[in-house]
Amino acid sequence: MSALASLPHRAVVEHMVRQVVYSRLRLPLPRASAGPNPLVVNISARHCHLTEQAVEALFGAGHKLTPFKWLYQEGQYAAKETVTLIGPRSRVISNLRILGPCRTLNQVELAYTDAVALGFEIPLRISGDIEGTASCMLMGPAGFFEMPQGVIRALRHVHMHPDDATFYGVQKGDAMRLRIGGPCGLSLDRLLVRVDPSFKLEVHIDTDEGNACNLRADTPCELLKP
Amino acid sequence: MSALASLPHRAVVEHMVRQVVYSRLRLPLPRASAGPNPLVVNISARHCHLTEQAVEALFGAGHKLTPFKWLYQEGQYAAKETVTLIGPRSRVISNLRILGPCRTLNQVELAYTDAVALGFEIPLRISGDIEGTASCMLMGPAGFFEMPQGVIRALRHVHMHPDDATFYGVQKGDAMRLRIGGPCGLSLDRLLVRVDPSFKLEVHIDTDEGNACNLRADTPCELLKP
Repeated sequence: MSALASLPHRAVVEHMVRQVVYSRLRLPLPRASAGPNPLVVNISARHCHLTEQAVEALFGAGHKLTPFKWLYQEGQYAAKETVTLIGPRSRVISNLRILGPCRTLNQVELAYTDAVALGFEIPLRISGDIEGTASCMLMGPAGFFEMPQGVIRALRHVHMHPDDATFYGVQKGDAMRLRIGGPCGLSLDRLLVRVDPSFKLEVHIDTDEGNACNLRADTPCELLKP
Repeated sequence: MSALASLPHRAVVEHMVRQVVYSRLRLPLPRASAGPNPLVVNISARHCHLTEQAVEALFGAGHKLTPFKWLYQEGQYAAKETVTLIGPRSRVISNLRILGPCRTLNQVELAYTDAVALGFEIPLRISGDIEGTASCMLMGPAGFFEMPQGVIRALRHVHMHPDDATFYGVQKGDAMRLRIGGPCGLSLDRLLVRVDPSFKLEVHIDTDEGNACNLRADTPCELLKP
């Protein structure tokens, strides 16, 4: 199976079309389209990040993850491989997707609805900050892998290139607000800003947040200061 | 099994305490506590409303629902009885709670996360407006009951007594905004106002909305004009 090249996100196409049309009409761009990059909002379904050691324990010695679908952030992908998550009360979530490439720590990101289904409490954490978080067991075709900690709900966040941070007037660690339109629209009041030259402008929310407002590719979204 | 008398909601107790304390101190009440009634925000987990005919088909001729837990709105209860919901792709949700008393139409209220798990699309509707909505099959201990329509995501709403409507300056059918605090706080931008002399002031949101912001009994909530 070779990795699928994703079609560009609707927000990316709309951003390009708007920039061309307004420029041809010699009109000033509306604020929401004037940024250096399109605003892409994506829902992260439950998934895990694993070390090479964990991948080998689960899939066999020397096993390497196979890209299944490339994600919007450069070099990141949903792997072909999935695992079974076994919660502390022996309830199970199957087909938990692994995101690649491998990292230096093991982390499972669930929505609260998933945690309720598994029957345990998980903390809200910034990705990577897993000290003292919930434990679980993972099961793969070649074996089990115990995670003594690392099960979290990831704090909603926005990835930004420094150019985007300058445009929005924010810095790494700031909070922003994301207004999502539509018939069950809502505003996410605290959205953590993460800035890196390798980042493309993208908001990550989880399935609870995405389903609460029924986020679709054509749902209008606006990134605002709190 | 006799129906459990619920403890008062934390918001009700806090409202009473605040009114007594401010009055003893001869201080004016803060706006959020000045209303005629406490603001209670509750999460409605997936459930169904059934006709007497449907209850008899599922539980046997002459069967009456048994109150299991009284809800905040006067006379409404979660019944002891639950049913199994079978979606159009034969996926199942078991232990779907019936809310009593019986109504004149059959309606299943799910969160979008439930609909995704069942593998079908459900529309966002005002409770009771079920024309042309999704179908399902219900299964009870005494038989099946087919619902040709009635599966919806209920539009988030606030129940109000006319006194509350006067205090907030809104009318039946208006939209309000609910700001929910905390580390993953959010604002629900469109909240339908429903007014009736029998209603107690209460916001109903679903599990996706409740889990998106991790609503707990002590989470600060504020009802605002849009």
